[in-house]
Amino acid sequence: MQTVNWTILENKVSIWVREAGEKIKKSFAAPTPLEVSSKSAYNDLVTNMDRSIEQYLVEKIRTNYPGQSIISEEGFGDKPDTVNGILWFVDPIDGTLNFVKQQRFFAISIAVYENGKGKAAFIYDVMADEFFHCLAGQGAYLNSEKLKPIKNCVLKDAMLDLSMSWLKPNKRIDENVLTDVIQTCSGTRSYGAASIELAYVAAGFLNAYFTMRLSPWDYAAGLILIHEVGGIATRVDGRPIDLLTKQTSLLVAGPTLHGEITNHIRVKINEGKNVNEPDSVS
Amino acid sequence: MQTVNWTILENKVSIWVREAGEKIKKSFAAPTPLEVSSKSAYNDLVTNMDRSIEQYLVEKIRTNYPGQSIISEEGFGDKPDTVNGILWFVDPIDGTLNFVKQQRFFAISIAVYENGKGKAAFIYDVMADEFFHCLAGQGAYLNSEKLKPIKNCVLKDAMLDLSMSWLKPNKRIDENVLTDVIQTCSGTRSYGAASIELAYVAAGFLNAYFTMRLSPWDYAAGLILIHEVGGIATRVDGRPIDLLTKQTSLLVAGPTLHGEITNHIRVKINEGKNVNEPDSVS
Repeated sequence: MQTVNWTILENKVSIWVREAGEKIKKSFAAPTPLEVSSKSAYNDLVTNMDRSIEQYLVEKIRTNYPGQSIISEEGFGDKPDTVNGILWFVDPIDGTLNFVKQQRFFAISIAVYENGKGKAAFIYDVMADEFFHCLAGQGAYLNSEKLKPIKNCVLKDAMLDLSMSWLKPNKRIDENVLTDVIQTCSGTRSYGAASIELAYVAAGFLNAYFTMRLSPWDYAAGLILIHEVGGIATRVDGRPIDLLTKQTSLLVAGPTLHGEITNHIRVKINEGKNVNEPDSVS
Repeated sequence: MQTVNWTILENKVSIWVREAGEKIKKSFAAPTPLEVSSKSAYNDLVTNMDRSIEQYLVEKIRTNYPGQSIISEEGFGDKPDTVNGILWFVDPIDGTLNFVKQQRFFAISIAVYENGKGKAAFIYDVMADEFFHCLAGQGAYLNSEKLKPIKNCVLKDAMLDLSMSWLKPNKRIDENVLTDVIQTCSGTRSYGAASIELAYVAAGFLNAYFTMRLSPWDYAAGLILIHEVGGIATRVDGRPIDLLTKQTSLLVAGPTLHGEITNHIRVKINEGKNVNEPDSVS
């Protein structure tokens, strides 16, 4: 197996990600930007941009790192059945609805794992020009600023990020499981782009991120940032995440807060409330 | 009564707001920034910054526009009992929790009304350097870019902004009133700074903003932006907003979406569900 020079990899990927960001920005500035008449034309345009950016990134990876596996959203990658070796995770545009409606608050997310261990993470909030990046063991950064260790916040002082879907009837989690959590914490936010929300937890802008359904390309990079600053990431009941599972629940926070929320959820599960992993739902 | 040259006023206030923004930014860069040990010290620091910025802005207004009334958050303004004449609304830091936890996503908000009609609006998202401003009848702007007329979106295509508080037991609105709305719309967001959220609706980044409790200094400027782009702003049941009421509910959207949501809420009220204006709650 090819030995990876991680510093060179970081330099290369940083360039690719910024170049991809420029392509997206140019598409907004074009004479006919995202102002398309019908909803299907709109969706086509988004899909085309998603595919074109993924194709660009996957080609760069294949050329520079031949033989390494890629898990990606739009299908230009591979379908590896093992985390052995080097594994790339690519999400060309995370936060598609924000991309469509706002033309902001979306990100390019790339992660590189070696034998199941996170090694390099890149999350680029294109329009804010905020580049969250990390080589495992060498510190996590927002642009050139090193992120501090995650704060050990308790629930009543915490700002939580989640989708409102999980507070109303849905097929993954009983709508009342989180009621106490929402009412106890100091505030809730919802930005609609998982990679940015994970990066925000790593950067201390948020104290926790909760979701019942997320794909590996959405969270793989964020998890590396989170671990680098001392945060904890598991399924919402505290069980470990499997990178090869198509979708998973996810709870990310500092150790104290993470324990507080997972304990709360386990109590609710023991009381008989439904908390279903995506894969367990038909 | 002094005749106001609105163009000169716009120029002056734009300078004051940016200067106030610089003061806030400098406070973050100071050797002992918002990293204070105890929670009460933290709150003191926020309160001090809030008060100091308000004092700065109120003094500018009093010097340049003597005799005009000011309604402001921190108490350096007046307590007018009429909207006759010129009335200023000042919120030195809207989004206090974001200010404390994130040091971003907060805004300075200033509005000027004449005989109850919105004339000039200024909302400055300090850290994003996004300045939303408007002279009534002359177009609304984000920095130098003119905002387009609000889109006539329907609920199923809409991105709504609200606090999760209104989806769980609270004393203003039955927790189930908005369930259908949340489940029908295309997405929900929550940014935690009303003035920015209102400006985002005006700019088309969001399609609606809903709250059960907001003070005039929080929404006065946002309403002017909203009206300028053709949006509708009322209480959540469709009744008009009273600028002199201490707190009000608020629903802001394009005409079609606004009608759709207020109709839904009125149906729920007729079914006996609680929807209480802040002033009607003991």
